[in-house]
Amino acid sequence: MTGISNSSVSIEALRQGLPALHNKSYFNYGGQGAMPQIALESIVRSYQKIQAVGPFSNSASAWVTHEGEATRRAIAQELGATPATITLTENVSAGCNIALWGIDWRLGDHLLLSDCEHPGIIAATQEIARRFGVEVTTCPLQATLNHGDPVAVIASHLRPSTRLVVLSHILWNTGQVLPLAEIVAACHSYSRDRPVRVLVDAAQSVGVLPLNLPETHVDFYAFTGHKWWCGPEGLGGLYISPEAMKTLHPTFIGWRSITNDATGMPAGWKPDGRRYEVATSAYPLYAGLRESISMHHQFGTSRDRYQRIRTLSQSLWQKLTETPGVVCLQNSPPQAGLVSFQLPGKSHSQLVRFLESRAIVLRSIPNPDCVRACVHYFTLESEVNHLVEAIQQFES
Amino acid sequence: MTGISNSSVSIEALRQGLPALHNKSYFNYGGQGAMPQIALESIVRSYQKIQAVGPFSNSASAWVTHEGEATRRAIAQELGATPATITLTENVSAGCNIALWGIDWRLGDHLLLSDCEHPGIIAATQEIARRFGVEVTTCPLQATLNHGDPVAVIASHLRPSTRLVVLSHILWNTGQVLPLAEIVAACHSYSRDRPVRVLVDAAQSVGVLPLNLPETHVDFYAFTGHKWWCGPEGLGGLYISPEAMKTLHPTFIGWRSITNDATGMPAGWKPDGRRYEVATSAYPLYAGLRESISMHHQFGTSRDRYQRIRTLSQSLWQKLTETPGVVCLQNSPPQAGLVSFQLPGKSHSQLVRFLESRAIVLRSIPNPDCVRACVHYFTLESEVNHLVEAIQQFES
Repeated sequence: MTGISNSSVSIEALRQGLPALHNKSYFNYGGQGAMPQIALESIVRSYQKIQAVGPFSNSASAWVTHEGEATRRAIAQELGATPATITLTENVSAGCNIALWGIDWRLGDHLLLSDCEHPGIIAATQEIARRFGVEVTTCPLQATLNHGDPVAVIASHLRPSTRLVVLSHILWNTGQVLPLAEIVAACHSYSRDRPVRVLVDAAQSVGVLPLNLPETHVDFYAFTGHKWWCGPEGLGGLYISPEAMKTLHPTFIGWRSITNDATGMPAGWKPDGRRYEVATSAYPLYAGLRESISMHHQFGTSRDRYQRIRTLSQSLWQKLTETPGVVCLQNSPPQAGLVSFQLPGKSHSQLVRFLESRAIVLRSIPNPDCVRACVHYFTLESEVNHLVEAIQQFES
Repeated sequence: MTGISNSSVSIEALRQGLPALHNKSYFNYGGQGAMPQIALESIVRSYQKIQAVGPFSNSASAWVTHEGEATRRAIAQELGATPATITLTENVSAGCNIALWGIDWRLGDHLLLSDCEHPGIIAATQEIARRFGVEVTTCPLQATLNHGDPVAVIASHLRPSTRLVVLSHILWNTGQVLPLAEIVAACHSYSRDRPVRVLVDAAQSVGVLPLNLPETHVDFYAFTGHKWWCGPEGLGGLYISPEAMKTLHPTFIGWRSITNDATGMPAGWKPDGRRYEVATSAYPLYAGLRESISMHHQFGTSRDRYQRIRTLSQSLWQKLTETPGVVCLQNSPPQAGLVSFQLPGKSHSQLVRFLESRAIVLRSIPNPDCVRACVHYFTLESEVNHLVEAIQQFES
């Protein structure tokens, strides 16, 4: 398999360090990753360090500042970006909200949403609509999974009043990988007066796709560490392009957003992505996420890992396609780690419960009504076989 | 000392379980508390539990839901409130922002701020002013530390256009305890048409004062677990009175804020304080905070602990008052755990560095320019003496 020969750690050794995989076959990386034991250990060491040097002291404060810098740097490197473009957040939704609420919406503005977004993000756009008199419409990307061109669909739904397009890089329900650079180009070239900005829910793409965000020209890219990166829950980030940052106002604001004058009064925003950070966070998680990212590097490059994810997901897709009673949503091999399928006439949530009782973990999706299995680069072919066999048992 | 005889754990035993206190004299509880070893252990057990049963599965989801409920219940009990009034947040500032951004501001509305608020909160109100054309003014509470009536000062600064008053229950700089119930009564009775709501920064009061929030009629009370409660950093909460919740709109929104219909579309807000929660958080911290709160219960009631805090802070205040070259801001004994003082002609940040190099930890405050020492109920009289002696050494 491409690149595997260069990896300094075997899949078996790597899985040994992931306690979540010791007692089950796991296919829910799109929900939450398997956190390495070394990440937990570094979180514990961070707690101990903070208590030892502070917890609140000049030394502790310097250490926390350094931890933040190291984490923004590690994240930026994964995205092909500079640390100044990175805001540390609690989760993907927080990043999306920073972008959504930071735009100076005017009555009559238009926000275009794909029809495959997570309900939490949809609800946020509905509140934006209510507060500012913004019109929110959706464009049909779900139907482009097997036929059609998502770029053309999006382009045909833009209007002179469109300010923002909100979509996912990898659709959480169907697993489709959208051509981000082409979509952004279509949005940015739509109007000469005022750019149509693009906000991406990157929950399913960060940790899966090899990324170079500046090359895509995307404006806002909101991600989390706890899914495909396998970091601790409660730590994510937001990439904001330098151009978009010029006009995006901070909304939720705290001491981390600002600089102070000598009398302790607010003097201005932090010069970079920190202006959208708020206040005290679970700093010990920072080291945990860096350990998780570092584990992936030990296995191979992002291209190696992505290639292996695709090989495994295509294997799973192939086997499901050949299983009587199972219909994969996609009629060609998947381009990432999500494989969504249906069992016509059966209850998908019942299948999920049946599998969970057999220590096989995946999830159902409400729209389209389906089951979603995720494979990571360290998934085993034997796990894939185990899953397919269990589905056959449920079928029979 | 009142109530100590009822405590099931000695101060020495309790301090043994607080690693931060093993290598220093600590006076920065207003910045961050000393986290118990048992809290860290329960955080680790939570991480292990999540990895074992999930991390993303029906079982893990049920467990996380239960953890959230247990934590809202534990917090509510400390505040004399019901769990439905509690929103779990990342920190105090997040809670303040939820209240600030959830009001339907109109052009020309007035927001009244005390002159003793944290710069992060001031910056948030400045952005509210800019976005919505709200006028923000401050009222002089700092000057009421030794003379005057803060209730009268606030009442005299209310206007027919005032929508919100923002202040701290215990002022972070001078340590003054404000008469919250009286202030809220003055604000609520000001106008018959539209209530003047009160948002409280409770960073310095939760974990110090015995509290019954419904009795004060306060509208919004934003707090954190990581200061006087000695919980992990990155977990706090917001109390919203049932009356205020009727009109406060969620702003930052995610899947935790909403209910879904059968097709996974947003169907409405959660019926309680969860509507202001956003998405995935560091759930393992929940058990950590509950352990910290439980440790305090083992020592004594909130009245016992508050009484002991006052006894110790009054002792520190007395000794500092008697130290040549030291001027306490307050000219009567403090009512809580903060003791702020000045060394006229000396650099306060130099004193802080001098003390930190001797393993005595406190902080300087920019306005008024002073040094702030915090005592908790488990502070030792010998620590107080050690601090005073070291200040005398710095002076000489």
